[in-house]
Amino acid sequence: MPDTADAPSTAAGIATDALIIGAGPAGLFQAFELGLLGIHAHIVDTLPRPGGQCAELYGDKPLYDIPGILHCTGQELVDRLLLQVRPFAPDFHLAQEVTALAQEADGRYAVETSRGTRFSAKAVVLAAGVGAFTPRALKVAGIEAFEGTQVFHRLHPDDDLRGRRVVVVGGDDAALEKVFALAEAGGAAHPVTLLHRRAVLQATPDRLARLEALQAQGAVRFLVGQVTALQQEGGRLAAVEVTDPEARTEALPLDALVVMLGLSPRLGPLASWGLELDRKQVPVDTATFATTLPGVYAVGDVNTYPGKKKLILSAFHEATLAAFAIAERNFPERRISLQYTTSSTELHRLLGVAAPATPSD
Amino acid sequence: MPDTADAPSTAAGIATDALIIGAGPAGLFQAFELGLLGIHAHIVDTLPRPGGQCAELYGDKPLYDIPGILHCTGQELVDRLLLQVRPFAPDFHLAQEVTALAQEADGRYAVETSRGTRFSAKAVVLAAGVGAFTPRALKVAGIEAFEGTQVFHRLHPDDDLRGRRVVVVGGDDAALEKVFALAEAGGAAHPVTLLHRRAVLQATPDRLARLEALQAQGAVRFLVGQVTALQQEGGRLAAVEVTDPEARTEALPLDALVVMLGLSPRLGPLASWGLELDRKQVPVDTATFATTLPGVYAVGDVNTYPGKKKLILSAFHEATLAAFAIAERNFPERRISLQYTTSSTELHRLLGVAAPATPSD
Repeated sequence: MPDTADAPSTAAGIATDALIIGAGPAGLFQAFELGLLGIHAHIVDTLPRPGGQCAELYGDKPLYDIPGILHCTGQELVDRLLLQVRPFAPDFHLAQEVTALAQEADGRYAVETSRGTRFSAKAVVLAAGVGAFTPRALKVAGIEAFEGTQVFHRLHPDDDLRGRRVVVVGGDDAALEKVFALAEAGGAAHPVTLLHRRAVLQATPDRLARLEALQAQGAVRFLVGQVTALQQEGGRLAAVEVTDPEARTEALPLDALVVMLGLSPRLGPLASWGLELDRKQVPVDTATFATTLPGVYAVGDVNTYPGKKKLILSAFHEATLAAFAIAERNFPERRISLQYTTSSTELHRLLGVAAPATPSD
Repeated sequence: MPDTADAPSTAAGIATDALIIGAGPAGLFQAFELGLLGIHAHIVDTLPRPGGQCAELYGDKPLYDIPGILHCTGQELVDRLLLQVRPFAPDFHLAQEVTALAQEADGRYAVETSRGTRFSAKAVVLAAGVGAFTPRALKVAGIEAFEGTQVFHRLHPDDDLRGRRVVVVGGDDAALEKVFALAEAGGAAHPVTLLHRRAVLQATPDRLARLEALQAQGAVRFLVGQVTALQQEGGRLAAVEVTDPEARTEALPLDALVVMLGLSPRLGPLASWGLELDRKQVPVDTATFATTLPGVYAVGDVNTYPGKKKLILSAFHEATLAAFAIAERNFPERRISLQYTTSSTELHRLLGVAAPATPSD
């Protein structure tokens, strides 16, 4: 367990020594390095699970340049980092975006999320990657009116759509997973329709085989085409007009439309927090990874400095130096020194591992 | 295989795009990152095997702060990095120290080692850790006269000492391993003597058990004391005088003395190459990890910059940025861009891995 307990929560929100924005590899390793220095962290992310871009975009894809790991997928790396940070038990606040960040008179940061979670943080680390991942919208006139009632994005629970005629728009692994979940939740009353702009799907061979099997069972049908208009009846969305690659248009009746066109990163409210920005990146000091706002740090793909390469292995270094800078700034009375995990009994205590069985000389 | 073949070797020595000094984690990962950019490297190290400090001092000890690896020993990390760099087949030149480094008129570096290996290198990366590891000497008057004939350091092959009366001085894992090797090579004619200044040995429980078993068999005897003088007879070392903790002295006849007092790092000739030094560290630019000598870079524990922490994970970042800087300097005509190992078919070709089985959209 970490060395410092957070102060009790007050009307100002959860009091914490460190708030990390972003639960990708940079954010997870940031919590680990802060933990080694006895600092507990809270982590906020817009996505409903940790991993960020690495799990979302490269979940199934191989990484070959993580030092000491011959290869692993993005999801495997995230799982490894989650296991590594476990001794320091960071608190996750998922599926919510940081909407406001402002420095208070006492130097702490008041931070609020889209779900109304509030923090009073001594230090804030931006580990927000290329920005908050938000579902890419289907661009068709009038669609906004049905958002949340008949038009849904990827994060919606599948069981609400049971027994309804559902059309899923998209052609990647995530779209297929959504189709599978709906086909299983919905029973055989109505086949789930998968609609993609072209016949080739960007999915793994096992998912393509599973789709084919579900098509053969009549549980899923696959159409090629694009939604070009909506048809309404009495204020309800009754059908979508689908135009196929030969420019033929037909109406597709439905109860619900699930848009699975991928995630698109956006910097979002971060741009309004008073941070200096350089082409949407946050400039940092390479000794501390501090931004121009005192007590706010930036690590990983969100930051920039001379020589910067957007690589996960650089984020690990950046998070480490940021952790030392935060420890020195937050706890000037402690004398922070570099200790090694090979030999430090203090670090072994924090990590919850037994001392090595080597007698000392 | 790497993209660039080294130029043919000439009288000036082995022509190479990149020479790495030091085969520890920093040097090994440096070769990997250069390989990803199509640059082949030669690696020189004073030790007879790769791994440097990490294998030598922490070989059996756990590391907990390598990102994504819950824990591994120093030797395991080295083994993992050796496996990872394999596609780029760096050439190792081991058990030799770089003795001279000088820039030629054409900008290349002429480098020579203690074994007479010569290089003409376009770029040099110092990944020399805390310096070249050299065996710590036993300090007793007159010992130098017998070096190489009756007094040996850790790197000596054991079979030369077969049948001779051998005393090993030291008390750590490496000293015990040497005793075991000698006891096995020597047969039972003379027990191997282990001499340590105190009764407690700094070794793993399994080694302590093995030592006990060998003592019980009469193959090894263990004495507590320090060598305080040498006894000569006709120009030969006949015995050492050993003083025990109670200040009693007795003569210990021997044919050979093997000194296993550990390794001590020293910067060595590096200090005379015209590099700027700051408290024995080499200052670098954090955008490129270039030193003050054009074409010479420094990564890992040997370098210094504001915020520097001597951590392996920082060496990985430093080596990566140095690789990009070397590629841009050595090959200005190429347009070096950051590619990702998840998706780049060029990097997959260099790594010798099959393209992922995902059809493209």
